[in-house]
Amino acid sequence: MAQINEHYRKLQAGYLFPEIARRVGAFREAHPGADLIRLGIGDVTLPLAPAVVEAIRRAAAEMGTPEGMRGYPPEQGAEDFLIAAIREHDYAARGVPVDPSEIFVSDGSKQDSANIQEIFGPRCRIAVTDPVYPVYVDSNVMAGRAGPATAEGYYEGVIYLPATEKNGFMPPPPEEHADLVYLCSPNNPTGAVATRQNLEAWVDWARRADAVIVFDAAYDAFIRDPSLPRSIYEIDGARSCAIEMRSFSKRAGFTGVRCAYTVVPRDLTGSTSTGERVPLRELWARRHATKFNGVPYVVQRAAEAVFDPEGRKQTAAQVDYYMENARILREGLAGAGFTLFGGEHAPYIWMRTPEGRSSWETFDLLLERAQVVGTPGSGFGPSGEGYIRLSAFGDRDRVAEAVERITRAGF
Amino acid sequence: MAQINEHYRKLQAGYLFPEIARRVGAFREAHPGADLIRLGIGDVTLPLAPAVVEAIRRAAAEMGTPEGMRGYPPEQGAEDFLIAAIREHDYAARGVPVDPSEIFVSDGSKQDSANIQEIFGPRCRIAVTDPVYPVYVDSNVMAGRAGPATAEGYYEGVIYLPATEKNGFMPPPPEEHADLVYLCSPNNPTGAVATRQNLEAWVDWARRADAVIVFDAAYDAFIRDPSLPRSIYEIDGARSCAIEMRSFSKRAGFTGVRCAYTVVPRDLTGSTSTGERVPLRELWARRHATKFNGVPYVVQRAAEAVFDPEGRKQTAAQVDYYMENARILREGLAGAGFTLFGGEHAPYIWMRTPEGRSSWETFDLLLERAQVVGTPGSGFGPSGEGYIRLSAFGDRDRVAEAVERITRAGF
Repeated sequence: MAQINEHYRKLQAGYLFPEIARRVGAFREAHPGADLIRLGIGDVTLPLAPAVVEAIRRAAAEMGTPEGMRGYPPEQGAEDFLIAAIREHDYAARGVPVDPSEIFVSDGSKQDSANIQEIFGPRCRIAVTDPVYPVYVDSNVMAGRAGPATAEGYYEGVIYLPATEKNGFMPPPPEEHADLVYLCSPNNPTGAVATRQNLEAWVDWARRADAVIVFDAAYDAFIRDPSLPRSIYEIDGARSCAIEMRSFSKRAGFTGVRCAYTVVPRDLTGSTSTGERVPLRELWARRHATKFNGVPYVVQRAAEAVFDPEGRKQTAAQVDYYMENARILREGLAGAGFTLFGGEHAPYIWMRTPEGRSSWETFDLLLERAQVVGTPGSGFGPSGEGYIRLSAFGDRDRVAEAVERITRAGF
Repeated sequence: MAQINEHYRKLQAGYLFPEIARRVGAFREAHPGADLIRLGIGDVTLPLAPAVVEAIRRAAAEMGTPEGMRGYPPEQGAEDFLIAAIREHDYAARGVPVDPSEIFVSDGSKQDSANIQEIFGPRCRIAVTDPVYPVYVDSNVMAGRAGPATAEGYYEGVIYLPATEKNGFMPPPPEEHADLVYLCSPNNPTGAVATRQNLEAWVDWARRADAVIVFDAAYDAFIRDPSLPRSIYEIDGARSCAIEMRSFSKRAGFTGVRCAYTVVPRDLTGSTSTGERVPLRELWARRHATKFNGVPYVVQRAAEAVFDPEGRKQTAAQVDYYMENARILREGLAGAGFTLFGGEHAPYIWMRTPEGRSSWETFDLLLERAQVVGTPGSGFGPSGEGYIRLSAFGDRDRVAEAVERITRAGF
């Protein structure tokens, strides 16, 4: 009798986005002519940059020739040209040395952040910020580290670090011990960004606690202030306590192209039950070689093109476009009397719900009164209650129209 | 103190292909001018079919336009057009009904076959054929189901079913109970193919044992006899006991393009510890939604093109080419006195080593005497000892030259 992985049954039933889809569907049915503006799911909307399109087209043509055909990608996920480009532009250019053997290319940071827990022991204690990107928690629920869910939507075995207005949505390290902590900056969903001091405090704590930080920098391209850290390795000591993940999804419109990477420094070790230290890089390399087969050649060339002078200019213009949307949302909605956070170094605005309403109530009101779709903050964790996430990934005119409609509707 | 997943340390150290690379490297160093013929790793060599190249190029151009831009793929991994094409050409055309909701598109059968164990409980008993594609076993070692390795290269907790000359490399179901069994037909590495009777016996056993079969049909396109089953669902009752995996890698030269899919029928259930039945499809859907983010749009279009009339013709011609290579290898080496198996419905020849030599000894001899690189059968499991796997994925002239060299060298 094949038994199932019963940890799956501890997952909270209603996943956020299906529930949004259900409510939007019901609204559409009741109002067939409604003109909805979607500021919900954080998905890019601008067309793929010409340099990227051209790179894919060229690579496809290349594979149609005997000399240009490529079979299985290398074990680390990508060929040297892409790993060299990442190393040069994302690290060396900011004075951060990273060895090519420390870079693992994959088809997405979602996958990497879901899979990374697998190289750790079953009793590792996990800490996450609250609200949080659900994948960090769900992947640990599935692996049996989270325990049962409470009525409030927490898991008993997970340490939650509330990200609140009071701490600027940047919770400090926990008092109690954690083995593995997930940090995301610029943050999804709150739009908050970690300062150098924030990261220094975390690195200092992790080194003292012998803990590992999983640093998700999927939104680093949206940081506008050049003095803010974009990689956790800009902080002294981080190489011995942090894994970093980056993605091409948001920085270059790759959500439908699929490319990301994870850095596991050689200095980073975990412990066996007898106290022996084992380089985590070796474990991740083994996982990558056994359970992954690399990124498509055409996608590797697409990612390489993001670093070309033309690709950099074009994708930077896309980021600028989204950040101008964020400014319009922030200023417009502040003018309409809302209290807002984020949106300065991140494509997400974290809006306090008016009059102490719940996230879902406000979601429904936005839909009914302004035909605008947001994302209820409570869907990202209990401390998200009382907030709505608005995404700046959208068409400029529609974003401006959304601001106007919300202002007109009055809240 | 972050503890590691100690099950990783039970993995056998020397992975097969790195060891081959090491020996080939040493040979090259000793013989700098040597002209090696590689019949080792099973990777495609022919250029990507023109219909596939064109589909990628068109899809890339589409994504460069506002109307054609695509963000995140759907939760099941691909859009309706690809799922419909798979359903029609791979299933309906053979009289096998499969619901679109049962098809999950991914970036590779390696990944799917590594990940599938995750939806099962930690104490599920695994059975594999021996020799075997290492990923089935290694993924279970990493998850803690395999226990420690023995000196002979087996894992204590895994049931091995020897595939031998005596049983035509198609072992019957085990006497002892297994919960989850991995079958691969046409087989990698032996090249054997399951008949209808073989599969009927397995389905019958699985239904009686309440076990689940993971049926890996990555090489189904190489089956030459139309009366042989290409899907396990051609067998009555398989929908309630089997998961099937297929890939575009070998059938259409996609090893560097990355696309595959897994079918989990709605009729298939597993059990909780209290005996409640749970549809496995729901668990796999949840895994797919949480830990995967779909296949690149350009790759989905590439896979769709494999089913177009032109794509089918072109990719069928590639398979024919490789199978003619297989014929040349089979007949040539049989003429040189070797005993061979497989290669009739599979791109792999399973060659008995001469004079009772070991697989690695024969590997070294082939390298030294004929400058031909094979794959030692013992690398796929202890019962592979005494065999060499030769791959038919290669250039026609080089394959013929390999036969000539081996014949000339004399063994």
